[in-house]
Amino acid sequence: MSSHHIVRDDQEPALIIANGAACNSELLGQLLEWSPLVIVLDSAMERVMELDIKVDVLLGDFDRGFDPEQYQTSQYPIEIIHTPDQNKTDLEKAFDYLIHRKIPAVNVVWATGRRADHTITNLTNIVRYRNLLKIVILDDHSKIFLLPNKFEKWYTANTPISLIPIGHVTGIHSDNLFYTLKDDSLTIGYRTGSSNHVIKDGIVTIEHSAGDLLMMECMDLSSPEKTIQD
Amino acid sequence: MSSHHIVRDDQEPALIIANGAACNSELLGQLLEWSPLVIVLDSAMERVMELDIKVDVLLGDFDRGFDPEQYQTSQYPIEIIHTPDQNKTDLEKAFDYLIHRKIPAVNVVWATGRRADHTITNLTNIVRYRNLLKIVILDDHSKIFLLPNKFEKWYTANTPISLIPIGHVTGIHSDNLFYTLKDDSLTIGYRTGSSNHVIKDGIVTIEHSAGDLLMMECMDLSSPEKTIQD
Repeated sequence: MSSHHIVRDDQEPALIIANGAACNSELLGQLLEWSPLVIVLDSAMERVMELDIKVDVLLGDFDRGFDPEQYQTSQYPIEIIHTPDQNKTDLEKAFDYLIHRKIPAVNVVWATGRRADHTITNLTNIVRYRNLLKIVILDDHSKIFLLPNKFEKWYTANTPISLIPIGHVTGIHSDNLFYTLKDDSLTIGYRTGSSNHVIKDGIVTIEHSAGDLLMMECMDLSSPEKTIQD
Repeated sequence: MSSHHIVRDDQEPALIIANGAACNSELLGQLLEWSPLVIVLDSAMERVMELDIKVDVLLGDFDRGFDPEQYQTSQYPIEIIHTPDQNKTDLEKAFDYLIHRKIPAVNVVWATGRRADHTITNLTNIVRYRNLLKIVILDDHSKIFLLPNKFEKWYTANTPISLIPIGHVTGIHSDNLFYTLKDDSLTIGYRTGSSNHVIKDGIVTIEHSAGDLLMMECMDLSSPEKTIQD
């Protein structure tokens, strides 16, 4: 079992393991070290069990002959939450659970890859949790989060930065990005800010006045095949 | 070499091999059998060469020390197209190339997976090619295309169907889908039609009056790990 159960500040982000493609074990290990609460979605539990991780919450609609009760002993104590509501995805239900428990932040892995409909839904639905929950989605190549209206962060030169509008975003200004945005608008499908990058070591500023803008810090890996074999 | 070079009707879709995650060899093989024209994007060529495929066009900005000329002999005859325009992705440039050659349809593989910014950009940017090029994006789990205002197709019962609005889509009606849409609106990030399914064997009808609506036919695989090892 991993040692993530050491008592930590409740303000550390929770960790949700969703049901898409697995990430590499190094990323998962780093996140587990700092996560006081680990939530697994539905049948992803079968793959998680192979990784020798202590799970705190197993949540899902369990509608495909998957029996969550089998983990009551091996994962004791574990909270099993049956969420049959078909109007929300399991990931949304896990966000709602965290908000209900007043947990302010969460990292999400295994939310991308495999089915494209799940990937695009998982990535874009985080916009509705603005002001409710600080969500970061991570995979082997990507770190994704919703930008506040004014965002400032230190980056090293040449860091790839993609700005993806979920819908229509207006009044965008940037500082220290190679393709400068100046009172610009971006529209999904028509004009996006994909594949920009940081000019020089230092603060990057991104502001927008209206709409939902996702930050995607993504990178190619030097040996991309490696993660597949992990 | 594969036998895709047998002379075929020019109306068969071309095939673009982009630079995301590789699909399984069975899917690629099926598409190659019917593709009169194979286009590879930029450094994906290095991975394609391992697969013993005859490539017709190699297209990209070639900006990372990648030398396309090395394939002039091994892939003779091959057309090499240098597209330095940084305002478009290599995939968009390949679409423009096909439109210029008056090729009406294309299948795209390796356009998803790996970097999330590339995946979401590739999936959503196809909406701007409405009426210009019939585009289908495929991966091991997904088949994605832009819906015309009235769409009808025969499906078997329980086929998973996801309707993903790229922006805001209005006046949506469906027939023979489990979650019926009736003059409904969908908005990316807020209300999507993900994870619907077909009620009974027969024609599914989906109509919408305005906006861009993607059809995603996606499925989980019974042994998802298999494709990773392919």
